[in-house]
Amino acid sequence: MVVKSQIKLIKSLQQKKYRIQNGMFIVEGKKTVQELLDSPFEAYKVFTTELSVVSAKSDIIEIVSMAQLKQMSGLKSPNKVIGVFYFPKQEVAISDEWTLVLDDIQDPGNMGTIIRLCDWFGIQNLVCSNNTVDCYNPKVLQASMGSIARVNIVYADLESFLKKSKLPILGAFMSGDPVYKVKLPETGILIMGNEANGISKKIEALISSKIAIPQFGKKTTESLNVATATAILLNEVRRS
Amino acid sequence: MVVKSQIKLIKSLQQKKYRIQNGMFIVEGKKTVQELLDSPFEAYKVFTTELSVVSAKSDIIEIVSMAQLKQMSGLKSPNKVIGVFYFPKQEVAISDEWTLVLDDIQDPGNMGTIIRLCDWFGIQNLVCSNNTVDCYNPKVLQASMGSIARVNIVYADLESFLKKSKLPILGAFMSGDPVYKVKLPETGILIMGNEANGISKKIEALISSKIAIPQFGKKTTESLNVATATAILLNEVRRS
Repeated sequence: MVVKSQIKLIKSLQQKKYRIQNGMFIVEGKKTVQELLDSPFEAYKVFTTELSVVSAKSDIIEIVSMAQLKQMSGLKSPNKVIGVFYFPKQEVAISDEWTLVLDDIQDPGNMGTIIRLCDWFGIQNLVCSNNTVDCYNPKVLQASMGSIARVNIVYADLESFLKKSKLPILGAFMSGDPVYKVKLPETGILIMGNEANGISKKIEALISSKIAIPQFGKKTTESLNVATATAILLNEVRRS
Repeated sequence: MVVKSQIKLIKSLQQKKYRIQNGMFIVEGKKTVQELLDSPFEAYKVFTTELSVVSAKSDIIEIVSMAQLKQMSGLKSPNKVIGVFYFPKQEVAISDEWTLVLDDIQDPGNMGTIIRLCDWFGIQNLVCSNNTVDCYNPKVLQASMGSIARVNIVYADLESFLKKSKLPILGAFMSGDPVYKVKLPETGILIMGNEANGISKKIEALISSKIAIPQFGKKTTESLNVATATAILLNEVRRS
């Protein structure tokens, strides 16, 4: 049976401060909860209005009323199930596979879309600067559509991470070389910068190749949104 | 001087019904308003708290108080300027340039991102099914970042539009041929389908080539969001 203090705890996980304090985050909706249950993530509890909604070990399932689910949920119309999971162990991955690096991405929708793109393009390691939006933010999780279960996300000091790596380091810049003309390496690190300011100066200094997506419209056009630019550049990495 | 009935009119343009009834739409923010003032769009009025914010003919500028601007705005924190513009003349463009066709796109954010992508990749003609989300919806305009000034958007019966065109017709399908292996034509029509249901059956019947973005992650991954898929496919069209 769910008790009041537990409802309060779950509700508090909408805020980053309490997620860190408890080492837990919540996901909503049958599909995403099941994907996380089937992944290496460790579940704390699954709260559901109907036993048959997800398949999980009986000791973690709690049947609740719709009213209780509503109290825990961050959504106006909650789905039938809320899963609470422990943070995974974060190890900065020094990998020889393509790695995506985010330098202070702020928008939760962009972050969620980028995680989903990593999943699609088989990019297993996503390394984020410490100021990048929290990947366990409910809006990020909603936009990432369960892909969080299949991408290894770490937060790190980018300078020291990049200095340790031996892979070629590419960065997206408006003024970079047209990506169609650049011979991309077989493996490397791709860095995408902040929505307003791009890649920061101290990170720029560590980049070996600046690339750009060619523009065909009038020059007054806004730059591409960072999530769509990431889509195009990960596609370029994989097609090459 | 702005009168009460005018404030009511502007406010009503948040809704599609009143946009159609009046043949007008509103945009907010200095940059987008200026871009539309500098485009072939015809302005009805520009409401601003400070004369120096935009450059426009004096007979269309109305100085208003911040309180009045707030009454007209759809934003919680309105910018200093609201522009009201007439709908442009919509002519279905039978063009021999690359044309993007949307079959019932519903999400305003996706629609706005796609308009911005057309602008970036120099796709001048965007043809939408009559059930596609209204491009003058304030959320679409916000996401399109002024690109609406540079892309010719028409709503049409897709079947009759496609039957009239002589260009090759390509469509995005999960089960299509990998786009990396397809020799794309020099010019053509690219169709993107609805977020949940993809391209409708009656439109599918008119397609000459089904293309797909190859997937590299695990097969459980969700399909790509339609805006990111459009980004990747327009990039493929332009790089080829």
